[in-house]
Amino acid sequence: MERIPVLKIGDFLLVSIQVDMEDQIALQLQEDLSDRIVSTGVHGVIIDITALDIVDSFVGRMLSTIAAISKVLDAETVVVGMRPAVAITLVELGLSLNGIRTALNVERGMELLARAREEELRFLGGDDEAAASGSDGTAVTS
Amino acid sequence: MERIPVLKIGDFLLVSIQVDMEDQIALQLQEDLSDRIVSTGVHGVIIDITALDIVDSFVGRMLSTIAAISKVLDAETVVVGMRPAVAITLVELGLSLNGIRTALNVERGMELLARAREEELRFLGGDDEAAASGSDGTAVTS
Repeated sequence: MERIPVLKIGDFLLVSIQVDMEDQIALQLQEDLSDRIVSTGVHGVIIDITALDIVDSFVGRMLSTIAAISKVLDAETVVVGMRPAVAITLVELGLSLNGIRTALNVERGMELLARAREEELRFLGGDDEAAASGSDGTAVTS
Repeated sequence: MERIPVLKIGDFLLVSIQVDMEDQIALQLQEDLSDRIVSTGVHGVIIDITALDIVDSFVGRMLSTIAAISKVLDAETVVVGMRPAVAITLVELGLSLNGIRTALNVERGMELLARAREEELRFLGGDDEAAASGSDGTAVTS
C-alpha cells in the first residue's frame, strides 16, 4: 500500500490522501498523477485531505508542487475537505498554499473546476471543446 | 488518520480504502458510511480497493457487511479497482464476495449503479424520482 490511488471521475481526477506523506509516496503520487493527466486528458484534479490531521510545510509544499505540475499539463487543482483545525494551524504556522484553490468538499470542488474551465474556454475565444461541453457560446470572435 | 473518508459525489458515496483494515477502523467505517447514507439519501456506494494488495477473509467479510447494511438502507454497493492479483487470490482462497457487485473502475461502477437504480425504479412502477432522474418513462401503469 505504498501508492495513493488516482481515480478518474468524469473530467476530473480524484486523489484521497489518507496516509502519512513520506518522500517516496509523495514522489510516486506526483508521477502517477502527471501520467494520468496526460493519459486521460482531464482538466481538473481534486485532492481530498479529509483524513489529514495536520498539513505541515512538507505536505503544503507537496500540494503546491502537484498544483504547479498539473497547471503545466493544463489541469487545475483544487484541495477539498480541509478540517477547520488544519486551516487554523496553517494560518498560525504562516504557511500559504501557493497557487492552490480550496473548496469545502468534493462536489463544490467539481463545481469550481467546471466553472474555471468554462471561463478559461470563453477567455480563449471558445474552441470546439466549449461547444461540446455546452458553453453558452458567448465566444469573442478574434 | 484513523478514519476512512466517505466522499459524496452526485448520487453516490465513494470510499477509497488505503489503510490496513483493523477492527476499529472497519467498525468506524461501517458507522460513518451508514450515517452518511441516511443523511445524504444516496442510493449507491462505491468502494475503491485499488490500493489493497490483498483481500483476506476479514476484508471480504467487511465488504459483505457494508453491502448488506447499505442494502437495508436502500443503497447498492459496488466494489471497484480490484487488482488482477487480488482477484486470483480471492478465487484461490475460495472466498466469495457475497452480495457484492464489482466493476473495473469508479466510472464503470457509477454506470452500473445508475443502471441498477433505473431498473429498480422501473420495476417499482416508476415513481416521481424516475421522472426527475430522466428515466425514459416506460413505467408500467399499475
